[in-house]
Amino acid sequence: MARLKTIQWTNDCARIVDQTLLPRELAYKDIRTSEEMYEAIKSLRVRGAPAIGVAAAFGLYLGIRTVPNTASAAIFETELRRQADYLVSSRPTAVNLPWAVRRMVRLAESANDAGTGEKKMLLLAEAQKIMEEDRRMCRAIGEFGFELVKDCKAVLTHCNAGGLATTEYGTALAPVYVAHEKGTVIHVYADETRPLLQGARITSFELMAAGIPVTLICDNMAATVMARGMVDAVVVGADRIASNGDTANKIGTYGVALLAKAHGIPFYVLAPSSTFDLSLANGRSIPIEERPAREIICGFGTETAPANVPVFNPAFDVTPHPLITAIVTEAGVLRPPYSETIAKALG
Amino acid sequence: MARLKTIQWTNDCARIVDQTLLPRELAYKDIRTSEEMYEAIKSLRVRGAPAIGVAAAFGLYLGIRTVPNTASAAIFETELRRQADYLVSSRPTAVNLPWAVRRMVRLAESANDAGTGEKKMLLLAEAQKIMEEDRRMCRAIGEFGFELVKDCKAVLTHCNAGGLATTEYGTALAPVYVAHEKGTVIHVYADETRPLLQGARITSFELMAAGIPVTLICDNMAATVMARGMVDAVVVGADRIASNGDTANKIGTYGVALLAKAHGIPFYVLAPSSTFDLSLANGRSIPIEERPAREIICGFGTETAPANVPVFNPAFDVTPHPLITAIVTEAGVLRPPYSETIAKALG
Repeated sequence: MARLKTIQWTNDCARIVDQTLLPRELAYKDIRTSEEMYEAIKSLRVRGAPAIGVAAAFGLYLGIRTVPNTASAAIFETELRRQADYLVSSRPTAVNLPWAVRRMVRLAESANDAGTGEKKMLLLAEAQKIMEEDRRMCRAIGEFGFELVKDCKAVLTHCNAGGLATTEYGTALAPVYVAHEKGTVIHVYADETRPLLQGARITSFELMAAGIPVTLICDNMAATVMARGMVDAVVVGADRIASNGDTANKIGTYGVALLAKAHGIPFYVLAPSSTFDLSLANGRSIPIEERPAREIICGFGTETAPANVPVFNPAFDVTPHPLITAIVTEAGVLRPPYSETIAKALG
Repeated sequence: MARLKTIQWTNDCARIVDQTLLPRELAYKDIRTSEEMYEAIKSLRVRGAPAIGVAAAFGLYLGIRTVPNTASAAIFETELRRQADYLVSSRPTAVNLPWAVRRMVRLAESANDAGTGEKKMLLLAEAQKIMEEDRRMCRAIGEFGFELVKDCKAVLTHCNAGGLATTEYGTALAPVYVAHEKGTVIHVYADETRPLLQGARITSFELMAAGIPVTLICDNMAATVMARGMVDAVVVGADRIASNGDTANKIGTYGVALLAKAHGIPFYVLAPSSTFDLSLANGRSIPIEERPAREIICGFGTETAPANVPVFNPAFDVTPHPLITAIVTEAGVLRPPYSETIAKALG
């Protein structure tokens, strides 16, 4: 596997793969301020729920590192909270983002006795810890998920929940990478995932780089792929999972789940525990980001629809828990009834 | 309604709207030979099952009009059959194409006593007749379909089965145009329809030109539109309907039908009788065209996937008849059991 480093901390900045340039260019971008990190998250240079959690943690450190070490605890805390709110506002749906930011803020607040300079160092260390934990959790998801898909000849995935959506390994694709390490070949059918084509640009790219067989399809071909018996399971990531198992993920996931149900194909959600939002009883109150019409009208430089056509462009949808066969976390495989199994595993 | 003339006969050539240039340019292309018509059909300058039937009829006339009037009946027939086979091979799925070509060939063969020059004139007249009938049939489909959707606030459609897929009015969109004439507003949600974006480029364009409200969505948003109660029915066209009602149509139609079923939304197929292939017991033997990988990898000039990624690109799928609420033809509304109602209406 060509190990792409989605995010790394180098000396004095966060370095990310600029995913808006894929697949044509594998370029890194150095992020030195919280404003640059906000922009990188909002414009999807770094994307994928777990990865933007890690990115926001580094972003928060970048946001407070210029506070003078001589600043009072009150001044530091004010700036920390301002930067935290700012970064959390970059994208609304993935819960890993506020989860990581809140974890950073809590750590600083709990370090009562530390001076401002010391708090800054603690926050950098915590961001690095969040990144390391993400890597470890994804590997564990891969091991648990492998047990579910090891006999599959092929799986279908939507969007990108691969290595480039996390620090490494990915969530939905982690079992495929683990299988590859064990010498088991699982073919991946990748939905291209309109409008921003993360499946075409990113999933195809990283699987080919890893030497794993992948076939790219348009989103509207998934039903045919299932009807022809070409895939044995669906694997997807998640941006936020409510306490009953309802799952927000990239737009189109809900449709794929309905199609899998109609064809009797298991539908697996794979996500680290930071993706669960136990404050929500169900998926109805998950905020769904709507993105600009231009993403649909003028994708990638060519106007493919009348410039002034009205557009509906939700970036996510919610898959109701009855459509989900299992949820795979770093703590193990959760099965229905999710209200109970989620509470037991994470509560 | 801005009456766009999909196909017209002008003096000595067929003039088509070059639909590959939409929505950026409304340009007409004069077609003077069968080779030019073959190219126009194959490269989708003219597309939509009923329209390519009409186009192929004119193409056949263009193919034989250079046979000298002094040629023998045998020579004329040989050339007629050669041109017919050639044009039929331009696209495999829509049955209207071989239907129109066979009708032309049969007419020439039945005109035993006519000389070659006379046969040529008969064939031009027959192509014009096929075009006129198409217009009339679509209008009738619109009237029958209106009764089904007149109380809908909004419908969802896939691909383009509008005026630009036929001589005029369209099939799936005919009820919407008829409603518009009667002063009833039906909002249309248009799937953009990857890979060639006929919904974005053509359906949006023609509905906006007609002053009918349209909202463009990506294919993978249809499930969300249904779940939110934004549409009351689905209307689609057809490329070939087997005698049991199984329907081949643009890739993605089958998935939309499954989603409609899951949401309890009626799913209507609208098509003229030339779309039925009573020689087929069911949809399993309908030939499904597969198109070049470039359509997915490099749509509209930008490479959005690794250049060498394997691709699966079926242009059509088959919707099994149990998912179809009704089939609307120029002869009326057909309901299950389709094997009986289709045979009765068209047998």
